[in-house]
Amino acid sequence: MRRPVGALPIAADFEIRERALPDPEPGAELLVRVLYLSFDPYIGSRLRGRHMGLPAPLPGESLPGECVAEVVRSVHPDFKPGDLVAGEVGWADHGLLPATKARRLVKVTRPSAHLGVLGMPGLTAWAGVTQLARVRAGDVFSVNAAAGPVGGTAGQIARLLGARTVGVAGGPEKCALVRDVYGFDACIDYHAPDWVTAYADALGAGSTVHFENVGATQLATALSHIQVGARLVLCGLVEHYHGGPPPQVPLIPIIAKRAHVLGLVVYDFYARWGEWLDMAVPWVEDGRLRVIEDVADGLARAPAQFEALMRGLNRGKSLVRVAPDAP
Amino acid sequence: MRRPVGALPIAADFEIRERALPDPEPGAELLVRVLYLSFDPYIGSRLRGRHMGLPAPLPGESLPGECVAEVVRSVHPDFKPGDLVAGEVGWADHGLLPATKARRLVKVTRPSAHLGVLGMPGLTAWAGVTQLARVRAGDVFSVNAAAGPVGGTAGQIARLLGARTVGVAGGPEKCALVRDVYGFDACIDYHAPDWVTAYADALGAGSTVHFENVGATQLATALSHIQVGARLVLCGLVEHYHGGPPPQVPLIPIIAKRAHVLGLVVYDFYARWGEWLDMAVPWVEDGRLRVIEDVADGLARAPAQFEALMRGLNRGKSLVRVAPDAP
Repeated sequence: MRRPVGALPIAADFEIRERALPDPEPGAELLVRVLYLSFDPYIGSRLRGRHMGLPAPLPGESLPGECVAEVVRSVHPDFKPGDLVAGEVGWADHGLLPATKARRLVKVTRPSAHLGVLGMPGLTAWAGVTQLARVRAGDVFSVNAAAGPVGGTAGQIARLLGARTVGVAGGPEKCALVRDVYGFDACIDYHAPDWVTAYADALGAGSTVHFENVGATQLATALSHIQVGARLVLCGLVEHYHGGPPPQVPLIPIIAKRAHVLGLVVYDFYARWGEWLDMAVPWVEDGRLRVIEDVADGLARAPAQFEALMRGLNRGKSLVRVAPDAP
Repeated sequence: MRRPVGALPIAADFEIRERALPDPEPGAELLVRVLYLSFDPYIGSRLRGRHMGLPAPLPGESLPGECVAEVVRSVHPDFKPGDLVAGEVGWADHGLLPATKARRLVKVTRPSAHLGVLGMPGLTAWAGVTQLARVRAGDVFSVNAAAGPVGGTAGQIARLLGARTVGVAGGPEKCALVRDVYGFDACIDYHAPDWVTAYADALGAGSTVHFENVGATQLATALSHIQVGARLVLCGLVEHYHGGPPPQVPLIPIIAKRAHVLGLVVYDFYARWGEWLDMAVPWVEDGRLRVIEDVADGLARAPAQFEALMRGLNRGKSLVRVAPDAP
């Protein structure tokens, strides 16, 4: 990659290069074959050096990002060839993964789900809904970027826990996905001129929980439609990942509504991934929790797929199927 | 009063008028003699129609505000002449108080404490420190307007619960009060040019709890000096009570530090006043919790005393001793 020159990174910022793999370090590294590569919005902020104080990747380096991979060669006792793992090897068809950073995957019908609903986006949704907001039956749950894997999973968890769920998404197709597939009670298209009225109507007395994925403007709107005592999870700010002034939130409604505004960083919950899998795997396997993926085939399509994600054009979890034979 | 014309209300906005009291409604109202009148910053926002959606008092009306009073005449079975009560009768030397709105006062050495440390400001501090932030031993507790009755009491409660306490206040005299009388570990004068550095140094690794009484600028500074997982109580915004754009704070540090921002409205805790009194009365009577009052004598001095409060010139709880013989 090169440093993006425009407002958003584009496909032309990337090129494919052939590189020889070094031998894995004995006892420490695994040689893996990448099946699926995950694209997530936070990579946009990584690219700008705006993510958790981490430096931006240097020109010529690969972008970070998780993959689901198959172990090809292992000299580590815990892993054998054929094992499925998740980890970070960059945008590549093969790579070396430190065994300590390989996440062994529970067997499920679609292993790619480990990058979406069962992966970091799903864990994020679980942490916000169940650990921070503590959603329960009777809650009125609002979430934006509701067609994406975090928002869509958050709303589905809330629905499964007995909340009424109102999504916000961009465009009628995404809203149809949120309503008809994810099973939200309502989804509001924020491109529509009267969307705030429609949002208020869908919420009725107001939200008791709001899950923020987008940014300051949508958060301010959400804050104007909460009930007394509402919990707001601050999860993502995709609108602000690529530039502009620091986003702010109005204080008066937080006090007037006795709101609890709760910052979420998913890394804090990595040690508890098993709790989410215990809950989610049965839901995924019997279809109560829907896995919707936006898959591009082949590493050559990675740049265009990433550009589409940065432009918000994905429908569900953005992935690249790197191995043509991946299940 | 008239409508204030300047940036802050001033003494000249008020006049004293003689009015005849109507007879108390039998069985419903008490005739009371006011001993002390309480001045609190929120009255500034009431005056501007910016408080909890309540209308501003009309020109010619008295300002609201609690008093400590002695029952003179009662036709209500629960109250007899000589009883001490708190309630709202406006700025006046006598008044009628609905018996349902009279708060019967626990006997303490200084009854005026029921307007400060044991009153609404103290209840506010208790609610924020113990119910929202749940301060415990080992916390690093930061609070601004620390010389005032809310901030000063909040810090004292936190200290008594085992927290290290850092106050922020305006000017060396207030800071001396906070350190030497309230017993904070440190107090930073925000009028000093290098105060942010001094504040950071006093906090060390950062605050684990911050209690906000002032407004957006100080809150943003506080947010820049919190530890991961900090709780922030949003209590007051005195800087914004009289005008200006709606205050906002940056979102990024809330997420990056996984902060919990908690809106506080003291009215929610009125039913639990007894819990605070059970804790506080022994502390007040044995001197562990200090009662510092800024008292003006006589109703005629009420306008000037109110102006001083609005300008932040008070040292401790702002009161007017209305009855010359008040204990």
